Amino acid sequence: MNSNPVLAELARNGWVENRHRGAFCIYDDKGNIIAATGDIERAIFPRSAIKSMQALALFSSGAVEKFGLNETDIAIAVASHHGETEHIAAVSSLLKKIGSTENDLQCGAHVPTNRKARNQLFSTGAKPGAIHNNCSGKHAGMLAVAKALGVSSDDYWLLDHPVQKLVKTSIEEVLGEKLSSNHCGTDGCSIPTFAAPLKSFGIGFARMATGKGFDDLTKGSIKTIFDAASNHPFLIGGTGVFDSEVMQVFEGNLVCKIGAEGVFCGAIRNLGLGFALKCDDGNMLAAEIMIAAILLKYASPDAVQRDFLLKRSEKTLQNWRGLEVATMRSVVSALGN
Amino acid sequence: MNSNPVLAELARNGWVENRHRGAFCIYDDKGNIIAATGDIERAIFPRSAIKSMQALALFSSGAVEKFGLNETDIAIAVASHHGETEHIAAVSSLLKKIGSTENDLQCGAHVPTNRKARNQLFSTGAKPGAIHNNCSGKHAGMLAVAKALGVSSDDYWLLDHPVQKLVKTSIEEVLGEKLSSNHCGTDGCSIPTFAAPLKSFGIGFARMATGKGFDDLTKGSIKTIFDAASNHPFLIGGTGVFDSEVMQVFEGNLVCKIGAEGVFCGAIRNLGLGFALKCDDGNMLAAEIMIAAILLKYASPDAVQRDFLLKRSEKTLQNWRGLEVATMRSVVSALGN
Repeated sequence: MNSNPVLAELARNGWVENRHRGAFCIYDDKGNIIAATGDIERAIFPRSAIKSMQALALFSSGAVEKFGLNETDIAIAVASHHGETEHIAAVSSLLKKIGSTENDLQCGAHVPTNRKARNQLFSTGAKPGAIHNNCSGKHAGMLAVAKALGVSSDDYWLLDHPVQKLVKTSIEEVLGEKLSSNHCGTDGCSIPTFAAPLKSFGIGFARMATGKGFDDLTKGSIKTIFDAASNHPFLIGGTGVFDSEVMQVFEGNLVCKIGAEGVFCGAIRNLGLGFALKCDDGNMLAAEIMIAAILLKYASPDAVQRDFLLKRSEKTLQNWRGLEVATMRSVVSALGN
Repeated sequence: MNSNPVLAELARNGWVENRHRGAFCIYDDKGNIIAATGDIERAIFPRSAIKSMQALALFSSGAVEKFGLNETDIAIAVASHHGETEHIAAVSSLLKKIGSTENDLQCGAHVPTNRKARNQLFSTGAKPGAIHNNCSGKHAGMLAVAKALGVSSDDYWLLDHPVQKLVKTSIEEVLGEKLSSNHCGTDGCSIPTFAAPLKSFGIGFARMATGKGFDDLTKGSIKTIFDAASNHPFLIGGTGVFDSEVMQVFEGNLVCKIGAEGVFCGAIRNLGLGFALKCDDGNMLAAEIMIAAILLKYASPDAVQRDFLLKRSEKTLQNWRGLEVATMRSVVSALGN
């Protein structure tokens, strides 16, 4: 097996300490490669990076219409939120609309990812609940799908449940290929996650960027999802989160979404392109540095966007005394032509 | 640049999600390679994995004799401890012997690595101090060196200070080669860390295992340091820590020490061998899985040791609901002949 190239490295006082390999691809909606490096045929788990594909079930199930879901509801359903006040409010509002409560969420509990939100929660003596799970919005959306379908809502997370079957069909429609249960894992929030070739996600997001090949209903649903995400970037992640900040600075022209274990997928909407990245070792900071450098090179940034991406394609790390001791940086030479 | 082989991988429901590459070597004290894979000529930062080399300055400075330091003092000086009660007591005792206090430690503060110790500290309303830093024992030892040398003790951590010069000389004596300030970084605890070829650390630890090539004084100092570590394994790490547990189970025949960013170094004392491992991407769990598999293969374990190493060469990971979703495992086929 050939190895993917080093796309980011950690240098300690200029000498490389760590190397992070990966593969990425950028496609147009006709399936032409715009840029790629590494093994893009290898099947990767997209994890949370394809929540916008999974959310299509909100439309095809009739949940959006039945419960009158708006952009805020849809944005939090495609988010990996950091548990800040606005995020919890959005999930609560969605749950209320569909007649569910936090107790119905099957994602498991974890502390808010945002430190301030975490400390705030601890200071009240409260314990973290399922609503603080970064996937709680997606789970609330899946509850909405279950209710719209009129099926059981206590086991909506299981592989063979009608909700997950519909979600799987939605992803398959976008990718234009079947997902295999031979390459199916369980995600951090307990729903199924299907591995597929990296290139399939790049092509899928390119098609989502333009709507090419979809019927009008699906095309409209995709546009609503992408508008929801890019009009409410803070809901998608939170304070200081790359996805939120990069979507803010691209003002509606970009959808960018992280996935656990070093994945980023998304669409450069104004260019009609889709992209997918997987860092081989799952390092999240390395993946973020990589995607910033990739967007810098391929997303045709204006001056403001360029400044932002330049800043985010390198990160200085401090030690326990606050001394700057190391830098995580992208390896630009490996980023293709 | 050729890539190092994949030595550990994370599989989600059987499908590989993450790949961790690395290089390792095992040497005897004549410089013969017993086993090796990957680029062992590449200079790596050993970080905390060579605290036992750095501790030789405790002897050559006269600090051990002057302050009557015992095995407990020396063990905590070569530890990356997890901030548990016994660790804090050992550092405090060492500081008291040399007439210093926590305020003299220049390592910076961080919360105890051990969760129970951390919660205990928080429950008292106290804040983490420099003594909780996993390197506080090493820093206390360096203060002892400064005092034994009769030099300033407030800037002992700086590259040009007599303490760090003596520490550098100690490492050079063991490796049998000069360290270059061109490959010098600042460690997490602020002292200098010098990069050198991975193989140099393997050979150095092999020579330490047998004492070959050292004068009697140095040979005795090395034996005392290795005895201190392997007789007090809990002090070297703490509850559940690989280094502590593996040294416990090898009953004095093994010295094993972690270093930040995926390093392990040590000596198989009864076989007269030294080893060094660097995980390319710095992942600590992957490095631990790798070293467990390497020791399983090359350290001639008895039945009990074998059971321990087998258990530690694979780790099942749970998600937020407690479901077992992934396994980090070694790639045995890449571990050489």
